[in-house]
Amino acid sequence: MFVVKVGGSEGIDYDLFLKDLAGHRDFVLVHGGSNELNEISTKLGKPPVFVTSVSGFTSRLTDRETLDIFNMIYAGKMNKMLVEKLQQLGVNAVGLSGIDGRLLEGRQKRSLKVIENGRKKIIRGDLSGTIEKVNVDLLRLLLDNHYTPVITPPAISYESVAINVDGDRCAAEIAVALRAETLIILSNIPGLLKDPADESSLITRIPRAEIDRHIEEYAKGRMKKKLLAAKEALEGGVKRVILGDARVENQLSKAFQQQGTVIE
Amino acid sequence: MFVVKVGGSEGIDYDLFLKDLAGHRDFVLVHGGSNELNEISTKLGKPPVFVTSVSGFTSRLTDRETLDIFNMIYAGKMNKMLVEKLQQLGVNAVGLSGIDGRLLEGRQKRSLKVIENGRKKIIRGDLSGTIEKVNVDLLRLLLDNHYTPVITPPAISYESVAINVDGDRCAAEIAVALRAETLIILSNIPGLLKDPADESSLITRIPRAEIDRHIEEYAKGRMKKKLLAAKEALEGGVKRVILGDARVENQLSKAFQQQGTVIE
Repeated sequence: MFVVKVGGSEGIDYDLFLKDLAGHRDFVLVHGGSNELNEISTKLGKPPVFVTSVSGFTSRLTDRETLDIFNMIYAGKMNKMLVEKLQQLGVNAVGLSGIDGRLLEGRQKRSLKVIENGRKKIIRGDLSGTIEKVNVDLLRLLLDNHYTPVITPPAISYESVAINVDGDRCAAEIAVALRAETLIILSNIPGLLKDPADESSLITRIPRAEIDRHIEEYAKGRMKKKLLAAKEALEGGVKRVILGDARVENQLSKAFQQQGTVIE
Repeated sequence: MFVVKVGGSEGIDYDLFLKDLAGHRDFVLVHGGSNELNEISTKLGKPPVFVTSVSGFTSRLTDRETLDIFNMIYAGKMNKMLVEKLQQLGVNAVGLSGIDGRLLEGRQKRSLKVIENGRKKIIRGDLSGTIEKVNVDLLRLLLDNHYTPVITPPAISYESVAINVDGDRCAAEIAVALRAETLIILSNIPGLLKDPADESSLITRIPRAEIDRHIEEYAKGRMKKKLLAAKEALEGGVKRVILGDARVENQLSKAFQQQGTVIE
């Protein structure tokens, strides 16, 4: 049993990835859709707004209108595209968001402490949060009946409001809940780079005790959350997290051969 | 056990409908999203195109781009909006499209014979079709585990391609597959009208033997498919189909009290 997260950034070749993935059995797929969301929301006159928290993490501001478009792209276009392609490859996929059956439940953030133009600012009412509970019974129900879950944010708050949650941390929570041995996180970079501008500066191994140091020293932007997700997964009992490249052929097989950044 | 279809036309009050619905147990909800789809696809520079078949049925032309936007609206925005609101009302809803787990499987139309400017024309390659199989095991799996399915087109073809199918006929197929006693189809009109311009001309009862005559004499546009769906449901063993108004309070309870057009 493994969990694989494929990002939604530019340059990812989903056909190559799914062809590789369909050769495996007993997995859960988690996906993103950020690039597509940025494009469509801009076309709909609602360009994305990102904020940087005081602790240095970047996130999307999510009001109700953004959340509706988020659902359109993540749960609609991306999720059903992946399910359809998996069906074509003989995998009996079932796509779910975290709202469905309260699959991913968590806490809505009361407020975001962000840095704007160098000054601290508090934002309230944002529809984002953190997953605290996975409905593992629903996942097992599907897996035991030979369905392959394809999971996407948003999650649902305890008050039953849809909340935007980070996809990598969502995959980590699912891997922990399913007691998966391996979590693979694929995106449009080879893994953690010492120098983000130089793809040959890949860090190939990170011992779990050194994750925090790597977050501080090397991780920028989205990579910070990937390492945080890896840390949460390992702390929850997952043996190994591999950050790999979703742009190349046999991405998944390469990740299983421990190419990319292996964190354990 | 009953199946209820709520349309996606203008004027439907989903909050009122769901409040009424949430008081019931043991049902499957099927929904549309046509009005929202028309609006968003127009905003995205892909305005809808409708054709009329030689037999007088109206349908949406569905190329790949339209199908992607269809997924965005039906499986994304509308489905997750309904699931979220049901969750808020204490119903543990799970939203699925017909692609998921091959829930709704059928045949892609080889060609559409349409009338354009008074002349017959053949259109090939349209991503639309007709449901022939319902994965009733998946529906039962969810229902038996106290999840309420919220179902939306598209369906999936035998060749695993997503196909646009009519929502009312989709609800009829599900009602038949689940051996439901009652199928309720709610939209933004009171039922079948003798005169579409006069809402007081409601036809309150249609004996099953007279459906065809009513299709020919009174049904216009979308209403033709609703009666066809009713006919298919009754032929498949459903006892009663009720066409009701989704714009008013207690729509569902009123339908159960046999207000609207009762076909049996």
